[in-house]
Amino acid sequence: MAHARLRDLGLSTGSLPTGQWNAITDVAGVAVGYATIATDEPLSLRTGITAIWPRGPAIWTDAVFAGFHSFNGNGEMTGLPWIEEQGLIGAPVAITNTFSVGIVRDAIAALAVRAGAPQRFHLPVVAETYDGWLSESETFPITTAHAFAALDEARSGPLAEGNVGGGTGMICHQFKGGTGTASRLVEDKGESFVVGALVQANYGAREMLRVDGVPVGREIGPDLVPLPRPQSDAGSIIVVLATDAPLLPIQCKRLARRATTGLAWAGGLGANGSGDIFLAFSTANHIRIGEPATEVGMLAPERMTNLFQAAAEATEEAILNALTAAETMTGRQGRTVYALPHDRLIEVMRRFRPPLG
Amino acid sequence: MAHARLRDLGLSTGSLPTGQWNAITDVAGVAVGYATIATDEPLSLRTGITAIWPRGPAIWTDAVFAGFHSFNGNGEMTGLPWIEEQGLIGAPVAITNTFSVGIVRDAIAALAVRAGAPQRFHLPVVAETYDGWLSESETFPITTAHAFAALDEARSGPLAEGNVGGGTGMICHQFKGGTGTASRLVEDKGESFVVGALVQANYGAREMLRVDGVPVGREIGPDLVPLPRPQSDAGSIIVVLATDAPLLPIQCKRLARRATTGLAWAGGLGANGSGDIFLAFSTANHIRIGEPATEVGMLAPERMTNLFQAAAEATEEAILNALTAAETMTGRQGRTVYALPHDRLIEVMRRFRPPLG
Amino acid sequence: MAHARLRDLGLSTGSLPTGQWNAITDVAGVAVGYATIATDEPLSLRTGITAIWPRGPAIWTDAVFAGFHSFNGNGEMTGLPWIEEQGLIGAPVAITNTFSVGIVRDAIAALAVRAGAPQRFHLPVVAETYDGWLSESETFPITTAHAFAALDEARSGPLAEGNVGGGTGMICHQFKGGTGTASRLVEDKGESFVVGALVQANYGAREMLRVDGVPVGREIGPDLVPLPRPQSDAGSIIVVLATDAPLLPIQCKRLARRATTGLAWAGGLGANGSGDIFLAFSTANHIRIGEPATEVGMLAPERMTNLFQAAAEATEEAILNALTAAETMTGRQGRTVYALPHDRLIEVMRRFRPPLG
Amino acid sequence: MAHARLRDLGLSTGSLPTGQWNAITDVAGVAVGYATIATDEPLSLRTGITAIWPRGPAIWTDAVFAGFHSFNGNGEMTGLPWIEEQGLIGAPVAITNTFSVGIVRDAIAALAVRAGAPQRFHLPVVAETYDGWLSESETFPITTAHAFAALDEARSGPLAEGNVGGGTGMICHQFKGGTGTASRLVEDKGESFVVGALVQANYGAREMLRVDGVPVGREIGPDLVPLPRPQSDAGSIIVVLATDAPLLPIQCKRLARRATTGLAWAGGLGANGSGDIFLAFSTANHIRIGEPATEVGMLAPERMTNLFQAAAEATEEAILNALTAAETMTGRQGRTVYALPHDRLIEVMRRFRPPLG
Repeated sequence: MAHARLRDLGLSTGSLPTGQWNAITDVAGVAVGYATIATDEPLSLRTGITAIWPRGPAIWTDAVFAGFHSFNGNGEMTGLPWIEEQGLIGAPVAITNTFSVGIVRDAIAALAVRAGAPQRFHLPVVAETYDGWLSESETFPITTAHAFAALDEARSGPLAEGNVGGGTGMICHQFKGGTGTASRLVEDKGESFVVGALVQANYGAREMLRVDGVPVGREIGPDLVPLPRPQSDAGSIIVVLATDAPLLPIQCKRLARRATTGLAWAGGLGANGSGDIFLAFSTANHIRIGEPATEVGMLAPERMTNLFQAAAEATEEAILNALTAAETMTGRQGRTVYALPHDRLIEVMRRFRPPLG
Repeated sequence: MAHARLRDLGLSTGSLPTGQWNAITDVAGVAVGYATIATDEPLSLRTGITAIWPRGPAIWTDAVFAGFHSFNGNGEMTGLPWIEEQGLIGAPVAITNTFSVGIVRDAIAALAVRAGAPQRFHLPVVAETYDGWLSESETFPITTAHAFAALDEARSGPLAEGNVGGGTGMICHQFKGGTGTASRLVEDKGESFVVGALVQANYGAREMLRVDGVPVGREIGPDLVPLPRPQSDAGSIIVVLATDAPLLPIQCKRLARRATTGLAWAGGLGANGSGDIFLAFSTANHIRIGEPATEVGMLAPERMTNLFQAAAEATEEAILNALTAAETMTGRQGRTVYALPHDRLIEVMRRFRPPLG
Repeated sequence: MAHARLRDLGLSTGSLPTGQWNAITDVAGVAVGYATIATDEPLSLRTGITAIWPRGPAIWTDAVFAGFHSFNGNGEMTGLPWIEEQGLIGAPVAITNTFSVGIVRDAIAALAVRAGAPQRFHLPVVAETYDGWLSESETFPITTAHAFAALDEARSGPLAEGNVGGGTGMICHQFKGGTGTASRLVEDKGESFVVGALVQANYGAREMLRVDGVPVGREIGPDLVPLPRPQSDAGSIIVVLATDAPLLPIQCKRLARRATTGLAWAGGLGANGSGDIFLAFSTANHIRIGEPATEVGMLAPERMTNLFQAAAEATEEAILNALTAAETMTGRQGRTVYALPHDRLIEVMRRFRPPLG
Repeated sequence: MAHARLRDLGLSTGSLPTGQWNAITDVAGVAVGYATIATDEPLSLRTGITAIWPRGPAIWTDAVFAGFHSFNGNGEMTGLPWIEEQGLIGAPVAITNTFSVGIVRDAIAALAVRAGAPQRFHLPVVAETYDGWLSESETFPITTAHAFAALDEARSGPLAEGNVGGGTGMICHQFKGGTGTASRLVEDKGESFVVGALVQANYGAREMLRVDGVPVGREIGPDLVPLPRPQSDAGSIIVVLATDAPLLPIQCKRLARRATTGLAWAGGLGANGSGDIFLAFSTANHIRIGEPATEVGMLAPERMTNLFQAAAEATEEAILNALTAAETMTGRQGRTVYALPHDRLIEVMRRFRPPLG
C-alpha cells in the first residue's frame, strides 16, 4: 500500500481552505527536519526525531510568542515553565521518543551555545511519545548527532509524513501512526492568515477513530485488520500549531487548546496513559533580545474564532494524514502494526456519505 | 413539535450504556430544581435558574470533591478560587443568565446562613449563559425568591429538559437550545460507576452541529430552518458532571476537561465569545467539617479512561437532548428561535447512516 | 489615636521612591471611590465597598490588560475566567464583604448596561474579605445604591485609608485593619514607571507581623494590646496592583504574583482560611472595542525585575498603611478591635533599628 | 572560614522547632545523594548533581503524592505535566546545572528501566540552576555515571551543605550559595508532622538579603565583601519540600506555594531571570501500581496553616544554611565568589537584635 495523504484519496475534512502545501510549513519561516532511525542489527529500532524551527536560525535572537495546553499530561514537554512565564520560544522545538527527551534537549542547548545565542538561559522545548512496542528505544539509541542531523536537515515546503522522524515507530488508533501535518487559511477583513499543524500521533483505540465524523474505526475492525499492542489507552499525541496571525502569548495558549477539538473529531479523548500536550506559536511578532520595549500586534479577540476552527481542522487532518501516510511496519520481536487500508477507508467513507442530491 | 429526548427519536450517540434516567440524577443523591420565568408583561422574559444539589441538604456539612476546566473563559462561574485551592464544594450549584449571577450567588450564601452551615466562608458556585436575545434579562428580573424556589424544588429522578430553568431562553447551534442531561454507566472490575452530565447549552454555529458525527447542521440549513441572532459565535455552554466513582479533586479536574471532547463531538469549538466552563464533582468521598483527617478513596489512574469516555458521551448526549427537548420559542421583540425539527433530524440521520449489512 | 500613614510616623519600608500620593492613584487615570457603612440601628454594620476605575469611564470602551494570582483561594474574585482567557478588564473593579459580592457584581453589570457598554458580555471583577466579626453583614445590608455610590464617588489624588470602603470592618494581624494604599517609582533607561497597590487587609496572626523586618507583632503582644477574634488564620487579603508600564496580560500576571512577596514581608503566609487573591492591570495599552487589531507595547522581560520589587514594596507598605490608618473600632455585640498603637510601633522600631553609624 | 550551619552560629529564624537533623531527611524514608564535580584540568568545573529519593528504592512501585508551584518560570523542571495531571512522583528527583538537565533526566529513565519499574511511562523530575559563572558547564561535562553516582550515594540522616552536589557552583545573594536544608516540626491535635526543605540556592541581589528580617545584605556591602557576577537578577532557586503529613496532590501544591513565603523572607522576589520552581511531596500515602483503588488520608484543610508556616520557615532556613555552609570558591577564569562572612553576620545580627529586656 502506497504512502498517501488524505486528500490524495479524494477525502477531506473541515470547511476551510488549505495552504499551499497543506503543511505547517505554509507558515512562512517554519522549517521542519527529520532524523529517522530504522535498524534491525544490533538493535531493532524504529524511532527518530522531528525538529521544528519556528523561523529558521533567526529564532536564536528573534523569539516568537507561544503558549501551550496539556490536555492529558502523561507525557513530557520540557521548557514549559518558561513558556508559561514569558510566552516566548527562542530555539528550535523537537519531538522524539520517551527515552530520548533528555539527550535531544541537551543537544538543542549545545546548539544554542555553538550559535552564540545571547540568552542567558537555555530552556529548550522537547516533547515525546512512546514507541517501545516497535522499537528498543529503552536502550537510549538516539545520540546528539541524530539530533543535530534532524535540526540541520530542516526545510520549508512539502513535508514527508507517516513513518518519519519522531513519528517513525508510532501507533495511532491501533493502526500505524506517525508524523502528519496540515494547514488552513483564514480570510478575514481583507487579511489572510494561515494556521499549520504538525502532529506526532501515537494514541487511541481503534473503535474511536472517526474521519469527518464517519466511524471508520468501528467499520474496520480487528477481523479486517489485526490490532497491535493490547492497551488501547497507551500512547500520546503531541500537536504543534504555527500561525502568522499576530497573537499574544495568551492568545497562543487559546489556540493550543483547540487542538483538543481536532483531536476529539478524530476520536481522541485523552486516555489516562496518554500525553496529549499541545504547543502553539505565532511568527507575526518579533521579540528581539536587547530591545527595551517592543511594539507587538494583537489580533482582536473577536477574530479568534476563525483561527480556532483552523487549528481544530488542521489538527484533525494532520492526524488523518499521519494515518494515511504511514505504512505497515514490522519491528521489534517481529511485531507488526498495520496501516489504515486506503481501499477500505474509501469504501467506508462512500458508504456513510450519501451522494449529493 | 413535541418535546422529545434523542433516544425517543430512535437515535443515540456513544457506546456506553445509560443510567436509569439517562440523567445527572442517576448519580445517587444528586437533585436538580428549576425556576422558569416566561412572561410578556410588563417585560418579555425567557429566563430562569437551574439548581443542582450534589447530595441534597447534607452538602452543607458533608462536602464533595470537585474540579473545573475553563475551555473558553468568556463567561462566569463564581467560586473558582476556592475549588482550585481546596477541591471542595459545600453548597448547591446554580446556573442562570449572565445578569443574575450575583443575586443567585448571594441567595445561596443566604441559604447557607439560614441553614447554619458551619463553614466560615460562603463561596457559592454560580455560572451563567446569556439569554438576552429572547429575554429582557438586562432588567435584572430574577429575585432571591426565584433562586430559593429553584433550590427548594430540586428532586431526583427524571428531569425536564429544553426550555426550563436557566436554559429557558437559550440558543444552541442556532436552533432553540436550553437545558439537557444524560448519563453513562461504566462497568469495570466488577464495579459499576455512573457519570451524569447536565448542560445549559447556548453556543455554536448551525453548520457545525453534528449528531453522532453526521453533519446535521449543514444538512438543515437556513433555507430549511431560519437562523436566529446573527452572531454564531455568541453564547456559551456550562457543563456540570457528577459521578459516584471515588475521585480526588485532581481527578475531578481531569473529568471536567473531557466535557471538551463531548462538546467537540456535537460541534462546539469554544468560539471567542463563548463561556465554556465545566465543573465535575464526585459524591463518593465525604469531607465532613470538623474531622481532623479523612480517609478517602482514589480510583486508580489507569481506570480513568472509561470515565473520560463516559463524561464525553454524557456531555454530547446532554447537548443533543437540550436540542431535541427544546421547543420553538418566540420572545423579546417577537423574535423566534426554531427548534431542531425532529422529522428532518431523523431523515438526515437515516440518509447518513447506512443500514447494517 | 489619630489616623496616620506609615511615613507620617517617620517609618518606611523598601528602597524605591514613592509616587506623588504614595497611592494607587499615582497611576494616571486610576480613580478610587468608597461607600462606608457604619450603623448601630437597626443593625450593627461595619462594612462597605471600594470601587476602582482603571481609567475612569473610558474603561467601558477602552480596556486595560490584566492578570491575577490566587495565592490562597479561600475567597472570591469574580470575573476570573474572563481575565485568564483574554487578559482584559473593561469595567470598574470592586471589593466588598463576603456576603455582598453578588449584589455589587450585578450592580456593575447594571452600570455597564446603563453606560451602553458595547461589550456583549458583562463579567465584572468583584472581590471580598470577611467582616462578620464586627458587622452583621450576613444580613446582606449592602444595596445596589451603595455600589453606585462607591462607583460614583471615585476620584484621583490622595485616598482615605483604614476604616473606609470595603475595608471598614476588617482585622489585620489581629489589629484593626482595612484599606491601605502605596506606590513606587521605577526609573529605568530614562523612563519612569509607577506601580501602585491598594489592599483590603483582613488577615494574619499578631505574632507574624513584621515592619521592615522588625518583629513588631511579637513585641506588641496580647498583654499590651488585647487580641480580637480567636482564629488568627481567618480573614483574607485582596491586593490590586496598577501600573503605567506597558505590560502584556502574561506580564500583568507575573506582577500580580509579586504581591505574595510584599505580603510575606508583612508577615502573611496565606493561612488556610484566607482568600489571598491578587489582581494587576496596566493602563499603558489601550484595547478598544471594534479595532480589528491593536499595536501594543511590551516591556522587555529583563526590565520586569524592578517592577517586581516595586509591586512587592507597594503591597507591603499598603498593608502597613492600612494598619496605621485604621482606628480602634467597636462594633457588633460590643466587640472591639484595637488599632496598632503608633507610639509602641515607633518604640519597637527604634529599639530594633540601630542608629546609623 | 569554616563550614557552618546557621544554628552553629547561635542564630536562627522562625518559631517552630526543627526535626532531629534539621534537614529534609527528617522525613522518614527521604534519602539524598550528591555528585560533586570540581576540577581545573582540562576544564574548570564547579558543578554536580543532587538526588532525592522520596522513599528510597520503594518509590519505583509505591508513588508519593506531589504538587509544584512555579513562582518564576525562567528555569526548568521536567516532569511537570505528569505531576499536574496525576499528582504523583514514582522516581527519584534530581537537581543539576542548566546544561545537564537532559542527561540526568535520561539517566533516571535508564535506572527505571534497569529497576524494572512497572510504569509504562518514565517522566523523571529534574530541575536546574545555572552555574556558568564559576563552571564551564556549557561543555556538558556531566555524564550518566555522575548521575548514577549521586543516585547510588543517597542516604538518610545529616546532610552536607554548601558547595556540594548540584549546588557546587552556585551564587546566592551575591555570596557563595549552594545546597541547603532545614526542617520544622508541627505538633497538632496530638500528632506530630515534619516538613523538610532542600534548596539549590542561586539567586538574588546582595542588598535584598535578610536574616530573620535583619537587612544583612545592606549591612555587608560590596566595600566589605566584593560582588561576583554583575547581574544580580540572574540565577534561580529550586526548593524541594517533603512532609509526612497526609496530603492529597492538591494540598502538596498548596504547600509548594509557601516556598514563596520563605524565599521572600530571605530576600528573594523571583527576579526576571530566575527559575524559582518549587516541588512538594508527601510520603504519608502509598500509591501502589496495580491497585484498583487506594484508600488515602487527607489532612483537614483547617490544619494546613501550621504546615504552611513550617514550609516557609524551613525554606528560609535552608537558604540561610546554604549561605553559611558554603565556602569561598574560585573557579573558571580565576573568578572568586566570597562566602557570607560568619563574624560579620553575627555582628550585624547582634546590632539589630536588642538584648531581651
